[in-house]
Amino acid sequence: MPSRVAIAAIRRVGAGPARTDQDLVAVEAPLAIVVRSAAGGASRPLGIVMRTPGDDRELVLGLLYSEGLIRTKDDVVSCAVADPAETGETADVTLAASVDLDARFTGRALAGTSACGLCGRLAVEHVNALRRGPARPDLTWSAELVSALPAALRAAQTVFAETGGLHAAGLFDRDGRLLGIREDVGRHNAVDKLVGAALDAAALPAVESLVVVSGRVAYEIVQKAVMAGVAGVVAVGAPSSLAVDAARATGLILIGFARDGRFNVYAEHDRVLPASPGAPHPAAS
Amino acid sequence: MPSRVAIAAIRRVGAGPARTDQDLVAVEAPLAIVVRSAAGGASRPLGIVMRTPGDDRELVLGLLYSEGLIRTKDDVVSCAVADPAETGETADVTLAASVDLDARFTGRALAGTSACGLCGRLAVEHVNALRRGPARPDLTWSAELVSALPAALRAAQTVFAETGGLHAAGLFDRDGRLLGIREDVGRHNAVDKLVGAALDAAALPAVESLVVVSGRVAYEIVQKAVMAGVAGVVAVGAPSSLAVDAARATGLILIGFARDGRFNVYAEHDRVLPASPGAPHPAAS
Repeated sequence: MPSRVAIAAIRRVGAGPARTDQDLVAVEAPLAIVVRSAAGGASRPLGIVMRTPGDDRELVLGLLYSEGLIRTKDDVVSCAVADPAETGETADVTLAASVDLDARFTGRALAGTSACGLCGRLAVEHVNALRRGPARPDLTWSAELVSALPAALRAAQTVFAETGGLHAAGLFDRDGRLLGIREDVGRHNAVDKLVGAALDAAALPAVESLVVVSGRVAYEIVQKAVMAGVAGVVAVGAPSSLAVDAARATGLILIGFARDGRFNVYAEHDRVLPASPGAPHPAAS
Repeated sequence: MPSRVAIAAIRRVGAGPARTDQDLVAVEAPLAIVVRSAAGGASRPLGIVMRTPGDDRELVLGLLYSEGLIRTKDDVVSCAVADPAETGETADVTLAASVDLDARFTGRALAGTSACGLCGRLAVEHVNALRRGPARPDLTWSAELVSALPAALRAAQTVFAETGGLHAAGLFDRDGRLLGIREDVGRHNAVDKLVGAALDAAALPAVESLVVVSGRVAYEIVQKAVMAGVAGVVAVGAPSSLAVDAARATGLILIGFARDGRFNVYAEHDRVLPASPGAPHPAAS
């Protein structure tokens, strides 16, 4: 089990005299990803992810899935993470011969996310290629259930919450049960790990689930959620304009500022039922 | 002036009946960056950044500077942001003929950040190429001054704070005066805009300044700060392990959890003087 937390010698400065102490910090370390085809040919460097070690295989699976490089678990023949030459950890991925690497790499050129500077993804046109409309538009969610999700997510991340430096992403079912939780210094990575774990469990598309994230939600989190086929995203923080637009275009429920028993619904308003039984149903008003 | 805030129709759900309302969300939109040489040759797509519109030129300058593609303002002949074909905004950058684009693009392959998935940067080896040791190791900072910076940053971002969705980065001088502040949905972008503005003002390296960021600090923020030559980074949130390691390796003061009059010093401990005059100086104990 790789260490996800490191000890740092610090000086605490506050009201009293400054004092030397120790603090726990979330580990951030590079993971290079190299992809090859079982059919042969050269291996291709996909990039380097700065991530919190642990669940690396799930991270890679989730990332490949979100990027559209794989579509099922069976597209992956093997995924081994190692550091044989001690030059840095590398995930060596072999994809099935049936996966057309050329075609799937083509769409990846030149894109980015709001959380980073420049990336290798075609974010802009991506949303247009996403599924249109929810898989199960008939499914609604109760406000009581949604309200309880952030606290449930936080309760499940007790160990690493102490660093204050890990984003969390959790998958919840229609009864509000936590199906899985993953943490990472990178918010996208936490979602990728979650999606990778669901893919590994043959649980995608997760049409009867919600993804809950501990932070803000920009475009790319919505993209990953849509790729995973979930019903919606519940964020403790704020959504961006493009996250709202993308959620509306794809029929994804998008909820932000979910904290202290309140939340805002930014997309698919009518699929979240009011908290008060006496209140009129939005669709009926 | 492009709009940095958009209005979204939402449903507010809380204690009382749910109600339809409006909310302000931070705008996130793609900006493609294309670089060419004044000496001729093909233009090269650098990538697409998802950013909050506004200060685009500064964003591009800061990004090129942080990436090591330019070293002075004079390396940039022109930088025009437009959307002539309405296919999406593009920043067209022409670099001076003296800039060896081939050489500077080579080091950019295959890297990433913890905040995104996969990027086009060589983060891992980057830190080894960074400046070693602070430019002015004799410069110390008072705890009182440092304690006041997060509130000063927040006070300066009143307009956009209402969306709850914008990261801020501010540059402060040795008297705690705010030299500049930039905001963005992406935390890296906010720092790039700040660095680009400083480059534009011929204020780099900013050896007598501190960068203050509203969120967490992972490796890449440290890298950008080191490239800009600032004395240190003060973050309201948590640092990652690699941020701490990189700060220590390069002599950058690194402060985290700066809030409510307290903070932790993670690197260059002895260059932050205690708050209480009666307390022993760390270096003397």
